Amino acid sequence: MVRVTVWNEFRHEKTNKAVAATYPSGMHEAIAAHLRRSGDLQVRTATLDEREHGLSARAVNETDVLVWWGHVAHDDVSDEVVARVVERVWAGMGFVCLHSGHFSKPFKRLMGTSCDLKWREADDREILWVTRPGHPILAGVEDHFVLDREEMYGEYFDVPEPQETLLISSFTGGEVFRSGMTWTRGAGKVFYFRPGHETFPTYHDANVLKVIENGVRWAAPTGAVEPVKFGKREKGWLDRRSEI
Amino acid sequence: MVRVTVWNEFRHEKTNKAVAATYPSGMHEAIAAHLRRSGDLQVRTATLDEREHGLSARAVNETDVLVWWGHVAHDDVSDEVVARVVERVWAGMGFVCLHSGHFSKPFKRLMGTSCDLKWREADDREILWVTRPGHPILAGVEDHFVLDREEMYGEYFDVPEPQETLLISSFTGGEVFRSGMTWTRGAGKVFYFRPGHETFPTYHDANVLKVIENGVRWAAPTGAVEPVKFGKREKGWLDRRSEI
Amino acid sequence: MVRVTVWNEFRHEKTNKAVAATYPSGMHEAIAAHLRRSGDLQVRTATLDEREHGLSARAVNETDVLVWWGHVAHDDVSDEVVARVVERVWAGMGFVCLHSGHFSKPFKRLMGTSCDLKWREADDREILWVTRPGHPILAGVEDHFVLDREEMYGEYFDVPEPQETLLISSFTGGEVFRSGMTWTRGAGKVFYFRPGHETFPTYHDANVLKVIENGVRWAAPTGAVEPVKFGKREKGWLDRRSEI
Amino acid sequence: MVRVTVWNEFRHEKTNKAVAATYPSGMHEAIAAHLRRSGDLQVRTATLDEREHGLSARAVNETDVLVWWGHVAHDDVSDEVVARVVERVWAGMGFVCLHSGHFSKPFKRLMGTSCDLKWREADDREILWVTRPGHPILAGVEDHFVLDREEMYGEYFDVPEPQETLLISSFTGGEVFRSGMTWTRGAGKVFYFRPGHETFPTYHDANVLKVIENGVRWAAPTGAVEPVKFGKREKGWLDRRSEI
Repeated sequence: MVRVTVWNEFRHEKTNKAVAATYPSGMHEAIAAHLRRSGDLQVRTATLDEREHGLSARAVNETDVLVWWGHVAHDDVSDEVVARVVERVWAGMGFVCLHSGHFSKPFKRLMGTSCDLKWREADDREILWVTRPGHPILAGVEDHFVLDREEMYGEYFDVPEPQETLLISSFTGGEVFRSGMTWTRGAGKVFYFRPGHETFPTYHDANVLKVIENGVRWAAPTGAVEPVKFGKREKGWLDRRSEI
Repeated sequence: MVRVTVWNEFRHEKTNKAVAATYPSGMHEAIAAHLRRSGDLQVRTATLDEREHGLSARAVNETDVLVWWGHVAHDDVSDEVVARVVERVWAGMGFVCLHSGHFSKPFKRLMGTSCDLKWREADDREILWVTRPGHPILAGVEDHFVLDREEMYGEYFDVPEPQETLLISSFTGGEVFRSGMTWTRGAGKVFYFRPGHETFPTYHDANVLKVIENGVRWAAPTGAVEPVKFGKREKGWLDRRSEI
Repeated sequence: MVRVTVWNEFRHEKTNKAVAATYPSGMHEAIAAHLRRSGDLQVRTATLDEREHGLSARAVNETDVLVWWGHVAHDDVSDEVVARVVERVWAGMGFVCLHSGHFSKPFKRLMGTSCDLKWREADDREILWVTRPGHPILAGVEDHFVLDREEMYGEYFDVPEPQETLLISSFTGGEVFRSGMTWTRGAGKVFYFRPGHETFPTYHDANVLKVIENGVRWAAPTGAVEPVKFGKREKGWLDRRSEI
Repeated sequence: MVRVTVWNEFRHEKTNKAVAATYPSGMHEAIAAHLRRSGDLQVRTATLDEREHGLSARAVNETDVLVWWGHVAHDDVSDEVVARVVERVWAGMGFVCLHSGHFSKPFKRLMGTSCDLKWREADDREILWVTRPGHPILAGVEDHFVLDREEMYGEYFDVPEPQETLLISSFTGGEVFRSGMTWTRGAGKVFYFRPGHETFPTYHDANVLKVIENGVRWAAPTGAVEPVKFGKREKGWLDRRSEI
């Protein structure tokens, strides 16, 4: 059983009627509703305006994979919670970063880069092309899929060279973007997935939901999530052996 | 002084009048003419129908960077010459593979994959976007450049995850392609660069020539190109030391 | 159910009494016996001197993960079978290469390098250190494990930069070796694991067997193993759309 | 001309007589003295207790490659200076991190991991083995070199999978460590090089100095160091074109 927390800033939904109409319970609940259909995923949600953003030490310690959506309020996320999330990733928790989460504090901390990009809100058509067939995150996805209307994100996307490039998008405007990428940070797996502008029904799209679900399974830790043991070694292996 | 050999299949130019009109002396000479303007590059050309394809043991041994264009006659390249080229790459020779060279014997041998892709000859407009600013191969290139008419190459391009993804193209048809990628094979550097369909004047384009020139400099070996010493070690380092 | 084929050259066992004493039914059967204890793995073995080396088209097509051990008879493996294996990897079959399999035809073809290294048969003690904790291939392995006697393999090991470096060994002689590495080739996952000299009881070691078992599960394809569809596209995505 | 700043914490040298005896002017001056012998390098030094740690905005803006050594006073480095350094790396400045600099603020920020490791101060002999022959950072280095006495650093070293693994060390105690690794962060190149415990004369060793010098040249930016232009694009490329 993989314990998933879907985190959402959950601000647009409260102030923008169009967003609220598309996601009456918030984007997190749209995603969580899909994930809950899988018997092997145990899903909860958490949002920015909850106590400790819904990410108390206990909540984070009981999370195997954290899905993150944020946009206008990245700075409202407390550094203490960010440190908690990042350290949990290093210990093995999976981290699935969605869309404008590229500028979230945890993602920027994990990448070590500015995570900046080009963008335009103009109802672009987005085609996402598969660049790593056979990858578990792409299970059930054809060689491409289309989102009729999305925000444009364009290269250069300032992230480290990924371990795997899974999807590349083209937009009506002619721009391109690496829309699915993976990295490892400590024992934790990180997956960035581009789509999901709040004013479009992207998180109701079957392909998008499938990729998120696959991403959650892929990012799940194999064993227990616990800090690696570092630090001082009094004796070398060969010395220690002589004691046996 | 970097010793460069520009290799071309040189068949289209002999049979297709349109190609001959665009490249009267062959694509290799168009590329070589540009490279020869640099005082630090010593440039020769070689073509398929020369003796040993112009790639005798001596010629290969005196080459620091090999640029390769092939298309309809990949199978006419002898396996002996391919082995010679590949082994020289392992020893440190740079290899710059252009366009349809993706299906050449040396490139496939170096990649270890099928190197297959999707394609269409239909006068697509190609926009090449920079995805690794600051990379020496992209020196002097803006954040994108355009080729008005090119053959379309589309993902999935079956190559190993690259060390660096430098350029991604979008085409009129909506397709995308990783158009600039690098790998290391042994002590040798490999650069794949997509543009260059024979019926278009691509190798007269200033940006394309700049990228090829940069690629040649980037792929040039730092020191002498010579095989690494492998094989049996009679004694361990610690044993050998006791002899000193 | 993952369908595993454990392939072994199976020559040393027939000619060397010491090897036969350690592996009465061959190294392949020692490994297969361990894997068969897992209910989710369906295991068969195949050896060089069988018809088509036990790797007929049907046998390969019904294999999800191929484990490979070879040493003195790499050249006796037919090129036709090698092509069959390599193409199946590109389509998604996992490939687990053991020890001296580094010089096998399929591994060299998949890597695109010489795969050469330094070596010494001198009863070195090998310590294998974990360099990617949390990776599924290392599940259940402590931060290091020891093999009291093994053949030494030393760097430089001429393989492409790996996607992940999982284990690094040190030897009595002071040498080091990247003993666990992964790559992707097409849709297939490749895992190289160093230990396993035929004169030592390495394939009876609990840690070694655990890593091989984990490697088999990690390399198993997610979905059906089938060739990716490449080739000509008559129309661009945008043209095709106008027909709908 | 590459403008190099060698930064040193410069605290041990003031409090520990043994360190002061080995490095009378500080480790930074030992390194800088070597680099100054090269006509193409313009070298200055900077230390923690200078105003703004010797890393004013102007100083950083006039640095092409920053070499960093820190140990006991990482926390004394101001966050403002760290941000300045990190942003300059993203814009193209090279960063060469030495030894205990693995725990420095800039390196941890650039890596996105804990950068933790195992260690022991016990006069271990260190053998550094080349794992990427032909790499410019290893020019002039044999297949291995030895430091008679060094602090032990052992795996797991918690850094992201590197772009290239150049050197791996073994120690008297049997431990191993990836002692030379590279990454790209934005337009900047990062090189980590392990040796350099303050109580040993490591920065007087010819091989160590050669690797640092090579690393500085490798990390130097190709062109001007300036921030990439990100942000909003009013129109798509195709729309913009129609205006021309």
